[in-house]
Amino acid sequence: MTAYLDNSATTKPCKGAKENMLKAIDECWGNPSSLHSAGIDADMLLIESRRVIAKTLACDEKEIIFTSGGTESNNIAVFGSAYGQRRKGNKIITSAIEHPSVHKCFDKLADEGFEVVKIPVDSKGLIDLGILEKEVDEKTVLVSIMAVNNEVGTIEPVNEIRNIVKRKNSPAIIHIDAVQAFGKIQINTKKLGADLVSISSHKVHGPKGVGALYIRNGTRLSPRVFGGGQERDIRPGTEPMPAIAGFAGAVSELKIKDSLEKITALRDEFVSELRSIDGVIINSPDDALPYIVNVSLMGLRSETVLNLLSGMGIYVSSGSACAKGHKSHVLTAMGLDDSIIDSSLRVSLSRFTTKEELRYFIEGVNRALKTIMKR
Amino acid sequence: MTAYLDNSATTKPCKGAKENMLKAIDECWGNPSSLHSAGIDADMLLIESRRVIAKTLACDEKEIIFTSGGTESNNIAVFGSAYGQRRKGNKIITSAIEHPSVHKCFDKLADEGFEVVKIPVDSKGLIDLGILEKEVDEKTVLVSIMAVNNEVGTIEPVNEIRNIVKRKNSPAIIHIDAVQAFGKIQINTKKLGADLVSISSHKVHGPKGVGALYIRNGTRLSPRVFGGGQERDIRPGTEPMPAIAGFAGAVSELKIKDSLEKITALRDEFVSELRSIDGVIINSPDDALPYIVNVSLMGLRSETVLNLLSGMGIYVSSGSACAKGHKSHVLTAMGLDDSIIDSSLRVSLSRFTTKEELRYFIEGVNRALKTIMKR
Repeated sequence: MTAYLDNSATTKPCKGAKENMLKAIDECWGNPSSLHSAGIDADMLLIESRRVIAKTLACDEKEIIFTSGGTESNNIAVFGSAYGQRRKGNKIITSAIEHPSVHKCFDKLADEGFEVVKIPVDSKGLIDLGILEKEVDEKTVLVSIMAVNNEVGTIEPVNEIRNIVKRKNSPAIIHIDAVQAFGKIQINTKKLGADLVSISSHKVHGPKGVGALYIRNGTRLSPRVFGGGQERDIRPGTEPMPAIAGFAGAVSELKIKDSLEKITALRDEFVSELRSIDGVIINSPDDALPYIVNVSLMGLRSETVLNLLSGMGIYVSSGSACAKGHKSHVLTAMGLDDSIIDSSLRVSLSRFTTKEELRYFIEGVNRALKTIMKR
Repeated sequence: MTAYLDNSATTKPCKGAKENMLKAIDECWGNPSSLHSAGIDADMLLIESRRVIAKTLACDEKEIIFTSGGTESNNIAVFGSAYGQRRKGNKIITSAIEHPSVHKCFDKLADEGFEVVKIPVDSKGLIDLGILEKEVDEKTVLVSIMAVNNEVGTIEPVNEIRNIVKRKNSPAIIHIDAVQAFGKIQINTKKLGADLVSISSHKVHGPKGVGALYIRNGTRLSPRVFGGGQERDIRPGTEPMPAIAGFAGAVSELKIKDSLEKITALRDEFVSELRSIDGVIINSPDDALPYIVNVSLMGLRSETVLNLLSGMGIYVSSGSACAKGHKSHVLTAMGLDDSIIDSSLRVSLSRFTTKEELRYFIEGVNRALKTIMKR
């Protein structure tokens, strides 16, 4: 038996994704910029794909820009906002627990003279709204916060964040990194009130190599990539068509509400079983996104357990796939003890995850804990 | 009958490309950064793909960085070189006929205070080596020239360019945009002596959404994209695996020498037939890459002919797909009359192009010319 429980790292492309990719490979393989009918066929597929993504986000088709993935979406959003608004101010704000593709952009901007503030989080991973309220001002040009944390699943209060920015009369562009939230909870860009939203395909059973950036009409971004004018010149370069079509295919198959209900029930039972095992600590808050459960097996180093589980066909991760080998900055920011951090595992579910897989993981945990007892 | 003769815009994914993509979708769909065996399987596919690309370019595997395509390769190369060498000097040189993904990066750098020189070309599209020799100096930090022009097929004297840079004791990084050359003529990075070489998958029957940048060992690039450390932190973001695997599949099937011979013979016959038609002018030089034939049907606007041909199932382009609607900067730089530019078409071949397709194009040309005669 195998149990793939690393769905926040990546997911298996689903049927709809594959079918659409094959369409882009076999039939509509023209260049969408070409003016002849081979190009037009490809362009129709691009238009249809954009329509699918826009519909899910409840926005205009022209507010969606396809990118090469979440990292590029975040880079374009952060640099584009900061440079584009430089005349209005120099202060940019994020949280202490963002993905490296946001944090490292902020670090680069700090080197260039921007005033960077990273808002701390509490023991649940929730950003401190009091400090945010104090920091946001008329010189703040960007507030970039993730919707759901990728290591613990904490759901950030993005509506509150928007309200604070509005209340303080700040000109700040609001960017939401929704890579882990998209497809799992409803992201309605209109209700969210954000200016920019990053999403990625391969976290929702689409192919790797494509993502999107929602850019609210009227939001001014300084260009970051330069070329032949594609994607409204915000992300030029021939569009990654098989991946874009596959992304739309995956999104078409999403049933966000039903899946959330199913996964919440599975997670609740899973967490309650885990809690009954001595030496197991749950690091994710109770009200986290149920797709992510961060857990520590006290006294066992993550890497050791990871190897043991992998040998059993159980695939989880220690922290995020994008930070291999580093001590989790998320768990550190949450103020957890080093003993907890060093033994933490991220179990991440998808709508295809079964009760049997989670039971098999618990079997693996029990085996790991027995191993340590013997030493 | 159809004749797809727009292979410089994009090509149809070949068998090897599709097979490898399916492998990445169905089997090795893990995240190459994950430490468990699902991740390792994906990483093995990534390693193997890199090996294939490195072998074709006669370089080390660690000198190859996968990107999202030619545009991103060019952006990383140009910005990375200019910023990375800023302390050594402020002057950057390119030609007048580069792709927008190079030109627009240079324009941006000019706005930021770099001294930008665009070397003119002659009527064949060859860059003026005399002017290059005068301009390259000890303050020049980047020389970026394309190996083959995308609109007319002119093969630039890249070895001469390198010799000039060395002779002038310039610290300049040499970047070759080989997007149109790769897979059609042998690119041996060692013999070429370039520091950076951009290539793209979808011009050689691989999928769209992936390219590569050769970075000679020891070449210092300032990072342009920030994230989770993938691709030696030069191009972070989860690797676009189906596309990378497909790229390698396409490259594995290349037979550069045999294809070049075949296409040269086809082109020679094709051009000689075209020349025998009144009102047809060949804009590509005789010694151009035979895969690209730029031709003008005097008195007929490109768009008109394009539509007529598309109706017949013949697909060519007016200039490059990346510059639709704009007057060709390449033909302008070559000093051609507006009447020639306005009526120019690019016919671009691939190794799968047949004599029948080219004959059908000539039939289309004759039909177009008859149409104008009637008016």
